[in-house]
Amino acid sequence: MTDLVDLTIADAGGRLRRGEISSAELTEETLSRIAATEDRIHAYVHIYGDEARAAATERDRERASGHWRGPLHGIPVAIKDLLATADAPTEAGSAALKGTRTGYDAAVVERLRAAGAVIVGKTVTHELAYGVNTPPTRNPWGSDHYPGGSSAGSGAALAARSAFGAIGTDTGGSIREPASLNGVVGLKPTFGRVSRHGVFPLSSSLDHVGPMTRSVQDCALLLGAIAGYDPRDGGSIDEPVPDYMRGIGAGFQGLRIGVERDYFFGKSVTEPVRAAVEAVIGELAEAGAEVIDVCIPELPAMSPVGLTILLAEASAAHHSLLTERGGKLDQQTRIMLELGELVPGTHYVNAVRARSMLKEIARRTFQAHGLDMLLSPTLPSPTVAMDALGVPDENGEDPLTTAINLAFPANVTGLPALTIPCGFSPDGFPIGVQLTGRPFDEGTLFRAALAYERNHDWIDRSPAGLT
Amino acid sequence: MTDLVDLTIADAGGRLRRGEISSAELTEETLSRIAATEDRIHAYVHIYGDEARAAATERDRERASGHWRGPLHGIPVAIKDLLATADAPTEAGSAALKGTRTGYDAAVVERLRAAGAVIVGKTVTHELAYGVNTPPTRNPWGSDHYPGGSSAGSGAALAARSAFGAIGTDTGGSIREPASLNGVVGLKPTFGRVSRHGVFPLSSSLDHVGPMTRSVQDCALLLGAIAGYDPRDGGSIDEPVPDYMRGIGAGFQGLRIGVERDYFFGKSVTEPVRAAVEAVIGELAEAGAEVIDVCIPELPAMSPVGLTILLAEASAAHHSLLTERGGKLDQQTRIMLELGELVPGTHYVNAVRARSMLKEIARRTFQAHGLDMLLSPTLPSPTVAMDALGVPDENGEDPLTTAINLAFPANVTGLPALTIPCGFSPDGFPIGVQLTGRPFDEGTLFRAALAYERNHDWIDRSPAGLT
Repeated sequence: MTDLVDLTIADAGGRLRRGEISSAELTEETLSRIAATEDRIHAYVHIYGDEARAAATERDRERASGHWRGPLHGIPVAIKDLLATADAPTEAGSAALKGTRTGYDAAVVERLRAAGAVIVGKTVTHELAYGVNTPPTRNPWGSDHYPGGSSAGSGAALAARSAFGAIGTDTGGSIREPASLNGVVGLKPTFGRVSRHGVFPLSSSLDHVGPMTRSVQDCALLLGAIAGYDPRDGGSIDEPVPDYMRGIGAGFQGLRIGVERDYFFGKSVTEPVRAAVEAVIGELAEAGAEVIDVCIPELPAMSPVGLTILLAEASAAHHSLLTERGGKLDQQTRIMLELGELVPGTHYVNAVRARSMLKEIARRTFQAHGLDMLLSPTLPSPTVAMDALGVPDENGEDPLTTAINLAFPANVTGLPALTIPCGFSPDGFPIGVQLTGRPFDEGTLFRAALAYERNHDWIDRSPAGLT
Repeated sequence: MTDLVDLTIADAGGRLRRGEISSAELTEETLSRIAATEDRIHAYVHIYGDEARAAATERDRERASGHWRGPLHGIPVAIKDLLATADAPTEAGSAALKGTRTGYDAAVVERLRAAGAVIVGKTVTHELAYGVNTPPTRNPWGSDHYPGGSSAGSGAALAARSAFGAIGTDTGGSIREPASLNGVVGLKPTFGRVSRHGVFPLSSSLDHVGPMTRSVQDCALLLGAIAGYDPRDGGSIDEPVPDYMRGIGAGFQGLRIGVERDYFFGKSVTEPVRAAVEAVIGELAEAGAEVIDVCIPELPAMSPVGLTILLAEASAAHHSLLTERGGKLDQQTRIMLELGELVPGTHYVNAVRARSMLKEIARRTFQAHGLDMLLSPTLPSPTVAMDALGVPDENGEDPLTTAINLAFPANVTGLPALTIPCGFSPDGFPIGVQLTGRPFDEGTLFRAALAYERNHDWIDRSPAGLT
């Protein structure tokens, strides 16, 4: 029999709605799983025990009285500890922010509560969602292996089945990297789609908030709950939120999928990843999608442009933290913040101008080929051993630096990018494939991803030895 | 009898259309006026003699054959030499750009040609529209007096009656300052209203192109010809261009006009300016407008925020000019460009963030009071003697630095700002009043300005001794 914690949000929601299970049960099972796994996984920095139980009971009472809030009603979810919550500290992974209480909920937390979700905990993040520092979180697929970052805890919690859905943030891949490494689904939505109000800023023009889940449909449900315009976020865009369930089952037929190989399949991409992603491409073509080879010679500019913007904006956002509490920051974070202070304004201005051009180039590429999406590996490698972090690979490059290269284009352009599992390496680590779409067209990404997911059992696999 | 060159665009256009005068005559008269005044005024760097005559003849032929392009058909106009023209050098006032030919027309030049305007010349600009360097242009109202900048030539050409309309650019007041000092009308349109394609950039997020004329109606006609979306300018906004003549005669009745006195009427504002602008306020109130005192305590932040953005963006735009041909730049321009290289990226990022807040504060101020516009002096002083440039005034401030303070808010917020003459100082120098409006609501500014202009003979006055 399937454990309750193995259910998807969609399945659990159906059973809840029909009264076959209660949110109290789901929540209790989730808290038990947390208790059973946390000493090895360390996905959480804060666990809502009694608060979650009380919320679940309230949701059950509502259901009994005929008040049904929707697909997240009664579902246990986790929040990256970069998002403000009124009822717990928000520390953004930093000793310099120990015990910080915002006194209010981030917009996404407000929306989740309104949607009936039961928040079971706040998950580990790299300090300020920055740098490459490694918090205690371990990858459930192999505890000597990197869980990704900065939304490490959210990714690991999903793989460990200690949450049904989780919120991450993504400035240079921080949703997609941990999603891929933990074998789950992660979406960096279109810039402006999900409010960053109440989210600890890193780089205001590159920061995104998004859903992480175990299935594609769950990802669509979670995005539907958290998306929407919010004037409190200066980057928010007033664009209607579609019903992401509508048309999600339409399949591959007629989709036009671009594949760029010079950059996205470059030498840093390892053989297992290359093979798995090429297999996806072959499968899509066979199933009726049109696969179109495209050439985007400007892609190598994405990371330098993004990094210049990121460095300057992060240091602008955290200047007072650095000067007032810099001694409490992790050394790597401090170095990055100090480095960012040295970026000349003219370089930043030029990077912003270059970004405009890169966005326009992306727009024209989609338009010229009539593309629905680009398909690429999410990461160059299925896994990184903890003791390989910071050690140059066979190409002389740091594995985490090369990892950002495949993710950064979607941050720089603001286009939505979804990662889903697409297989396993020979040594059993999950591999992700990335779909990058048109602005505000997350729906088409879900449609393609669901068609692929249905042909495979990736989401039914879970790390061994969790309980 | 009125000289032809004293006619407004509207009057001249009417006579042209009715065949009472020809564009050839208008153009010849304008070229004669240029010939008669240039040795004292130095408004032009390039004069189109035979090209203008040929264009005028062509426009006359068109009219005779029933092809009428609209209100600018056959009207002699001048272009600031910051705008590219295919048929003449574009030197942006710089020895470092001597003889530069772009080979194409700026968007505004394209539009003017399409509207039937006859371009008679390119006008003097401060080098790169930057700094406070003083080119040879003199003020027709007093040749020992500053003609304003950077659109000095455009302002002086109008006062000297050596063009019917002129194009200026405004990054920190460079349309409004010369308009006010030369006793003419100048509009910095809403950011995004007029394309900057083909305009030598200074500060891409603060640069504006706009019309300068002798009457309010002419300003509306000229804006109508040059406004509109242009994807070649990244800052252009796709907003329909209204018919600015519609409702322009509706008068003051019911207009809600905000007056802020702490900043806009501060100690730098001289007595003649204060008296003239207060007289305008009194007149508006009497004529049926509602005058509302407003408080905007954040206004003093406008100039520091704008200057940080300007310095960094200008140095980013002109980095290669500085490094490759810096020796040919005016010393003041070079110092400003070198200074801009020192602005830290974090300061620029914070200034951009502060600008967002200042825009929001402006929006809320307009909304809270239901304002149609703000009214203020355009400049603190009716005039600046050439030998007082760079000399601290009685408050210890440089007169040109204080001048920018009243203009900069409209650049920082992107709101449209119109200056019109509102009287003369005791020693005979013109004074301007500035109306700042809602985004894309230039029409209401024209309406108020026209109602005021009709009650006065300011536009009929011209500098003595020109011919």
